[in-house]
Amino acid sequence: MRKITFLLFISCILLSQLTFAQNKKLTMEDAIVGQCRQLYPQYMNGTWQPESHNFIQQKTGILTSKNADTGEEKTILNLTELNQSLADVNQDTLHRMPRISWIDNKRVYFQTRTNAYTFDIISKTIGSSFTFEKGDANFDRAISSQKNIAVTNANSLYIVTPGERIEVAKSDSDDLVYGQSVSRREFGISKGTFWAPNETLLAYYINDNSDVKQYPLVDITKREAEVEMIRYPMAGMSSEHISLGVYNVATQKTIYIEDKDKDSEKYLTNIAWGPESKYIYIQVLNRGQNHMKLNQYDATTGKLVKTLFEEKHDKYVEPSNPIVFIPNNNEKFIYQTRKDGFNHIYLYNISGKLENQLTKGNWEVTNVLGFDNDNKYIYYQSTEASPLEQQTYRVNIKKAKIEQITRAPGTHSTKITYDGLYAFDSYSSTEVPRVAQFIDIKKLKSEILLEADNPLTDYNIGEMTIETIKAGDGETDLYYRLIKPADFDPNKKYPAVIYVYGGPHAQLITNSWLGGARMWQYYMSQNGYVMLTVDNRGSANRGLKFENVIHRQCGKNEMEDQLKGVELLKSLGYVDMDRIGVHGWSYGGFMTTSLITNYPEIFKVAVAGGPVIDWKYYEIMYGERYMDTPDENPEGYKSTSLLPMASKLKGDLLIIHGYIDPVVVIQNSLSFIRECISNNIPIDYFVYPRAEHNVRGKDRIHLMQKVTDYFEEKLK
Amino acid sequence: MRKITFLLFISCILLSQLTFAQNKKLTMEDAIVGQCRQLYPQYMNGTWQPESHNFIQQKTGILTSKNADTGEEKTILNLTELNQSLADVNQDTLHRMPRISWIDNKRVYFQTRTNAYTFDIISKTIGSSFTFEKGDANFDRAISSQKNIAVTNANSLYIVTPGERIEVAKSDSDDLVYGQSVSRREFGISKGTFWAPNETLLAYYINDNSDVKQYPLVDITKREAEVEMIRYPMAGMSSEHISLGVYNVATQKTIYIEDKDKDSEKYLTNIAWGPESKYIYIQVLNRGQNHMKLNQYDATTGKLVKTLFEEKHDKYVEPSNPIVFIPNNNEKFIYQTRKDGFNHIYLYNISGKLENQLTKGNWEVTNVLGFDNDNKYIYYQSTEASPLEQQTYRVNIKKAKIEQITRAPGTHSTKITYDGLYAFDSYSSTEVPRVAQFIDIKKLKSEILLEADNPLTDYNIGEMTIETIKAGDGETDLYYRLIKPADFDPNKKYPAVIYVYGGPHAQLITNSWLGGARMWQYYMSQNGYVMLTVDNRGSANRGLKFENVIHRQCGKNEMEDQLKGVELLKSLGYVDMDRIGVHGWSYGGFMTTSLITNYPEIFKVAVAGGPVIDWKYYEIMYGERYMDTPDENPEGYKSTSLLPMASKLKGDLLIIHGYIDPVVVIQNSLSFIRECISNNIPIDYFVYPRAEHNVRGKDRIHLMQKVTDYFEEKLK
Repeated sequence: MRKITFLLFISCILLSQLTFAQNKKLTMEDAIVGQCRQLYPQYMNGTWQPESHNFIQQKTGILTSKNADTGEEKTILNLTELNQSLADVNQDTLHRMPRISWIDNKRVYFQTRTNAYTFDIISKTIGSSFTFEKGDANFDRAISSQKNIAVTNANSLYIVTPGERIEVAKSDSDDLVYGQSVSRREFGISKGTFWAPNETLLAYYINDNSDVKQYPLVDITKREAEVEMIRYPMAGMSSEHISLGVYNVATQKTIYIEDKDKDSEKYLTNIAWGPESKYIYIQVLNRGQNHMKLNQYDATTGKLVKTLFEEKHDKYVEPSNPIVFIPNNNEKFIYQTRKDGFNHIYLYNISGKLENQLTKGNWEVTNVLGFDNDNKYIYYQSTEASPLEQQTYRVNIKKAKIEQITRAPGTHSTKITYDGLYAFDSYSSTEVPRVAQFIDIKKLKSEILLEADNPLTDYNIGEMTIETIKAGDGETDLYYRLIKPADFDPNKKYPAVIYVYGGPHAQLITNSWLGGARMWQYYMSQNGYVMLTVDNRGSANRGLKFENVIHRQCGKNEMEDQLKGVELLKSLGYVDMDRIGVHGWSYGGFMTTSLITNYPEIFKVAVAGGPVIDWKYYEIMYGERYMDTPDENPEGYKSTSLLPMASKLKGDLLIIHGYIDPVVVIQNSLSFIRECISNNIPIDYFVYPRAEHNVRGKDRIHLMQKVTDYFEEKLK
Repeated sequence: MRKITFLLFISCILLSQLTFAQNKKLTMEDAIVGQCRQLYPQYMNGTWQPESHNFIQQKTGILTSKNADTGEEKTILNLTELNQSLADVNQDTLHRMPRISWIDNKRVYFQTRTNAYTFDIISKTIGSSFTFEKGDANFDRAISSQKNIAVTNANSLYIVTPGERIEVAKSDSDDLVYGQSVSRREFGISKGTFWAPNETLLAYYINDNSDVKQYPLVDITKREAEVEMIRYPMAGMSSEHISLGVYNVATQKTIYIEDKDKDSEKYLTNIAWGPESKYIYIQVLNRGQNHMKLNQYDATTGKLVKTLFEEKHDKYVEPSNPIVFIPNNNEKFIYQTRKDGFNHIYLYNISGKLENQLTKGNWEVTNVLGFDNDNKYIYYQSTEASPLEQQTYRVNIKKAKIEQITRAPGTHSTKITYDGLYAFDSYSSTEVPRVAQFIDIKKLKSEILLEADNPLTDYNIGEMTIETIKAGDGETDLYYRLIKPADFDPNKKYPAVIYVYGGPHAQLITNSWLGGARMWQYYMSQNGYVMLTVDNRGSANRGLKFENVIHRQCGKNEMEDQLKGVELLKSLGYVDMDRIGVHGWSYGGFMTTSLITNYPEIFKVAVAGGPVIDWKYYEIMYGERYMDTPDENPEGYKSTSLLPMASKLKGDLLIIHGYIDPVVVIQNSLSFIRECISNNIPIDYFVYPRAEHNVRGKDRIHLMQKVTDYFEEKLK
């Protein structure tokens, strides 16, 4: 059954084409802003009310509920009611409805700039009130059974209760930071505080930054420019020293997780509490990132209880998901790993013994959604149907039997009710602009909530196809997306622009609306360009081996694969091979600069945004995973560095960088510019003075106009 | 006589043309590096040996002497002799001859990286030795009668003697800086220590910077970029607090010059000692820069003795020269001021009474060279012959009678013997690549040392003329320099580029080799451009009124005058008025950006380097002189700011900035870029990552190629 779907789907994709024969032209504003608005249909996000079949959406001033059983739709809260309840307890009323989140079936939580409240959705009354201070951030709630909200302020950590503000850990400098995310948010780290299930113990990261060098970012909007120093540990340099504290709200005491190897700059990743609030589980990874230990610690003493198991790889391991205990089960948990080559779900018991591999195959689990209240199934998304798709499945925990919940080809986003009876599903595909539906999971019957019209019907844009070519290794299938020029004439010769990212963790080509392409690529098709994108080896959702070929040689295999894209362009017959351009940002900026300097005879014009120029300028956590340190891999750093390639540049290269980019620091591009100057090589440059790693908002129109103008001037 | 010379000369200039009908083409390297080398002939710099008629030149490894009476030329020192003398006193020998300077007729001084020495030129023996420490800078010698060298190190001040290092004033932070130049080297300030004639008292600046905001400059050459904070007081913000200490080497005590008005942020300019080492004279200027007091202070007590006289102006006064006592005369000194509208020399006595105005006329004294040993004459340079020339004169102190020493039209650089009998003179003009000569001042007879050949004979460059047009006021004569395209054909239409500076203190058009133009302008003439420069009102050497029209409205009159240049281009008939470009740097970058945004219908392409974008981002000392503070002159700041003009930009503008420019900080151009982005206006930008206010050395070839390419692409 699954096989059939897969094959069916593939043939769909191979034939899929966006063909609209109308005359409207995308403006640059359409191309940039339209992608998030009218030209890319969405269904308003929502959430299942806990322990119910009510799907809740927050609209302007109201909260609506739609029942999946009855179809009944009603308003369950409005701003007037909310304000009345605030006034009743002498609190400031609000101008607009704040974001509402659910605590349980009856209670919600919301937050204003200065306060937070629990609120009874039935009686329409405020429960608890919390008062914050200016600068409070990283709010982390434990309010199901207790009334504790962890907050950070500057570098310190506090717990706010309805009557009290408790100082958990105080620091006057960013040499030492409490309770914030660490390791530059790699390894799935997205926060720095972790409430125990009992909601009275708070585990928190302690980040000793004192050895980490600071990078200066300059704010020119001040009366006189000012510098902000950020901690930016570059590859091979001194790194963060991370430890974990556990604060007990009842005793007001902190204990520290045992660390016998304090100076090793290891990573404490994927913090998880055991169900009884007695143990903390940490996936401890060495700085070399090739040896992970799943450690169990006693939350009362901080002592290491045991290492449940270890995982090693001669390239790297990348733990990215905390273990998750089966609800109401103190013995068993699930763990995700790519140890068999693809990310899958494994069932372990507390002694560290593998009980079962729940999912298996040459595809990847991409997102675990949760359990139902019988703890019979785990709901998750995977690429089982196709590497280009995200479909939703459930696996029976006991039998490891998989059932597919979503069926329509495409990229699904799904939310499951507490009891696993219903799914809310929103998807698009190359053929489907947007469908939103309720799915009755047992009957696999759906109720359509939205079936969006094609918003591009009136536009004359180029035809898009997604197919595969062989990678540089001659074996691996790579997906590519080709957009022909609008008003395509096979007898003409067209310039082509390759849009590239190429790095890990990203996939540019998906079976979703527009094929995953940014609308700008269709804009360019209107200007007469062939637009090509190839998801080379190294990119996401194709398994470990597909990704880790980049190890110690970022760019090498990726470039080989992109050259296969160039061969494809040549084979088409209608591409003018003297007019090949390339554009990319971030890793894609690195790829772009690599391609035009390594293959000056192929690439004539390039626009590289926020490029890594030498991996020694990139940060430790991401950079050393793929490149090791400059000392460990001098050859790799040397052969991938673009600094010596500046002198090889022949074509037109425009580099663009955010002046305050805290991710790929501007030292990268400025160093390359400096090399060009030293070698008397013409080069173009532009900076966005207030942009960080990406140019956002309205400024993006200016950016993409600049990119477009460069190709129009130099390539056309 | 002077009149005749003047008229004669003017006719020369008006007809002067560089006409070479050969075929060699300047390369960009010729154009940039050639200006300092083979294409712009120089005569090796030299100096008169004190109390002699020997002209000393320092050549590779030797010191030569040429006697003006006999013509005898000999080597008076070589490296071997110097090294022998060093070895004799157990000092390290040298690989190359250090720069030799004269103490008196027999003794010289030289310095290595770690040491300094006095040396007897007759006996060829080392006299005194001084040892420095790493980081010593701002060496200031008092070694005629004493053996003291003042040095600064970091923010502190020391005196080094042959056996000792004395700490004069120590500071651990640049909040407080001792002994360095202040006020950003405006008002002629070029150093921070001032030895009394007796060489035992040392006056020194104390710069309390603690209220001055720091500007961040980022050094990307470090392993990880680092920030250097410089004190940069922007217009209207808190400024330096300057005071003066006087250290007595004998007593090792410091006294401080009295300051009853400590918080007024006044300027202590043009520090001068009285001849008996009893008094210090300071030209004290208010922060408003419109009221100067010449104050006499007791050097023993620091007390104000009296104010000799005051000078006020409703726009600004700009004291730029210390008073100079007539040698061997404790009563009389000379003082330079533009109070009658032009810079002239005045003779005052110590009671503050004006004895005589020694020079007078609608021309400016530009450089006082000194006195002869009879104290009969003052030698100086002025623009008396023409605003385009620098000629050398002497004035009889008693009779105020002027005699002209140099005669040939052009720009002279002259050095007079101690007794006023001989001058060494080096000059060039539009007709004369370089002549160097001895002049017998009494007989006005010269002995030619060099008469350089025209190094451009073989090059096919455009014809250059210097003439005048009327300024925007319809009255004032402005000089302009026009370079026609090479192979000029009056029936063709050519694009034109205006090269502009436009600010005070600079004059681009002079009667010197190439007419004062940079060689790049001739390079552009070879590429088919008409190159025009107009020295607008505001520029140097034309008197106070000519300059101070810019007060409170920088750019306004300057632009009007540049538009007269555009009218001239139109009148020529062979300029394509749809292809007018403009280029300038610094004030010229401000002018360039002002012109293309204010006159988009005229200027199609512009390249602005290191531009001031809003005078609020410029520093106090220079900026407030011309613009007052933003609070005092809100209208002026508003009407000259280019930030609101970004939205008016229509043509192609490339802005270039040194990434670590400490003069016009990059906040200027980045703020303009930001405005362009906000208004979705296309703009081009480039930075030189290691350049300060100017792009120097080999990088300049890259720079001017970039500038050229921009005009070639957009204007041609």
